[in-house]
Amino acid sequence: MRKYSIGVDLGGTNLRAAAISPAAEVLERITGATNLDAGREAVLEDIVNSIKALEDRLGSEGLIGVGIGVAGFIDMRRGVIVGSNNLPELEGVPILEEIEQRLGTRVFLENDANAAALGEKWAGAGKDVDDLALLTLGTGIGGGIIYQGRVMHGFVGMAGEIGHMMVVPNGNPCGCGNHGCLEKHASARAVEGMAYMIGLGEKVTARDVFELAEQGNELARRVFRRMGVALGIALATLVNLFNFPLYLLGGGVLGAWKYFAPAMMEEVERRSFTYRNTRTRIEKAVLGNEAGLYGAAYLPVQAQAS
Amino acid sequence: MRKYSIGVDLGGTNLRAAAISPAAEVLERITGATNLDAGREAVLEDIVNSIKALEDRLGSEGLIGVGIGVAGFIDMRRGVIVGSNNLPELEGVPILEEIEQRLGTRVFLENDANAAALGEKWAGAGKDVDDLALLTLGTGIGGGIIYQGRVMHGFVGMAGEIGHMMVVPNGNPCGCGNHGCLEKHASARAVEGMAYMIGLGEKVTARDVFELAEQGNELARRVFRRMGVALGIALATLVNLFNFPLYLLGGGVLGAWKYFAPAMMEEVERRSFTYRNTRTRIEKAVLGNEAGLYGAAYLPVQAQAS
Repeated sequence: MRKYSIGVDLGGTNLRAAAISPAAEVLERITGATNLDAGREAVLEDIVNSIKALEDRLGSEGLIGVGIGVAGFIDMRRGVIVGSNNLPELEGVPILEEIEQRLGTRVFLENDANAAALGEKWAGAGKDVDDLALLTLGTGIGGGIIYQGRVMHGFVGMAGEIGHMMVVPNGNPCGCGNHGCLEKHASARAVEGMAYMIGLGEKVTARDVFELAEQGNELARRVFRRMGVALGIALATLVNLFNFPLYLLGGGVLGAWKYFAPAMMEEVERRSFTYRNTRTRIEKAVLGNEAGLYGAAYLPVQAQAS
Repeated sequence: MRKYSIGVDLGGTNLRAAAISPAAEVLERITGATNLDAGREAVLEDIVNSIKALEDRLGSEGLIGVGIGVAGFIDMRRGVIVGSNNLPELEGVPILEEIEQRLGTRVFLENDANAAALGEKWAGAGKDVDDLALLTLGTGIGGGIIYQGRVMHGFVGMAGEIGHMMVVPNGNPCGCGNHGCLEKHASARAVEGMAYMIGLGEKVTARDVFELAEQGNELARRVFRRMGVALGIALATLVNLFNFPLYLLGGGVLGAWKYFAPAMMEEVERRSFTYRNTRTRIEKAVLGNEAGLYGAAYLPVQAQAS
């Protein structure tokens, strides 16, 4: 009998599930669309069916448990999605209870950015450390903090909002009410906004800005340098606060590393005496958009081990 | 036989020690000067003699252990003061080993700001929580982070440098290499610098600025408001990162609370959605400059309990 854990990554667009061994090998996987238009009931059914399909393939005896990573704020004590930009239909749903009842087994719920950080710790770039922070550079900037091998939640599960650290006091306004949030100065959308402002075009995507930088466009390169400075400011504060050995960057904008990383590293070096005086590493995450799947699957493995 | 623990607070000016019961009652105390001019050997002897004097009074059978809070960066793994502005004579001294050998008992070493945070958790304003951050507003700004009841150290013991969070990107220069550090915009010295710049006098102390504010001086009140804004910016980021239930402010400038707190609270409220959506408390610490003594004394108590 082969032991395995099931991880589910529930995003606004895709629903993915994988059966993963305790040694972090993917054994089976399922990918589908998140059927939000069909309503919450349909989404819950899709989740449950994905899990059951994997169980059918591998046999239910070996199942260690199920973990689900969800894009949104989760009240960890109640297992409820409190708020989610990507999954508004699931707000207020006691998702943990609903799925546990349908499956008849214990389920672990986690915010997707936290799950990604945990995935990198288990099976990715953070295997050799117990403490790390992951910044996921996408449309926004997600954050996950791993301390002593576990996700740091805070008292209602909202810790790790690295994307909402202030990096420019009178900077761009953010939906959270703050202004100058990191994600308004260093996410894909921030890159696009800066590119538009500097005159690179109206519907220019972060990918386009990258292509322009590749072609030697100095304006595009400046946009990425500003992004790097914003990341460096945030990282310097993180290094000074946490003194962790490792900070990881992941997400879609990671491909532009060579254009933003030099300015980022220079800023951290200059701003953090802890960085200058310790062997602190700032590196690329390696699991890409699989990180959340790994982290979700690791939740029951970790719970069993403790 | 009465059980007790000994806490030592070694600052640049004072050496204090207290015997404290497991119920956090001070049983005996000793206060003296830190005799830095006499050299490191004399300081080590003073520490050891203070501890022995308390042991003589209470009997050595009841001694649970000894904890020492020190103003400076400590390499926790080696028990060495790596750097200290206030105690440069002790840099590089294997203080833990030296004192353990002379006493013949196990000793716990901790940074003074961390010890103060732990003291507030044990016996002060944080008794009812497991997670808190303490900002000590003095000449500089010290920080201590308590997570799950314990000091958060980071991998070389330098975590919790809240005073070196950036709050103004192109702000006042800091000795750490950064500029715009919280402690350059919200400490006693920052208050004095701002008061000087705004024309309140050349040798005006933070205490003087407070007195002027009390007399209705609008410039003095503006200085404290700016201090409050800087604190609020930092607190908003802390709340977004940690989602702790409690953040405490202590230190000498706390007396000016009514002049800086309104601007501080307004800034946090505006900048942090987590603050607006949770029951996060920002409050005064209650142990004053005793906090570090309590925290140091709690270290062996905590170690015994775990």
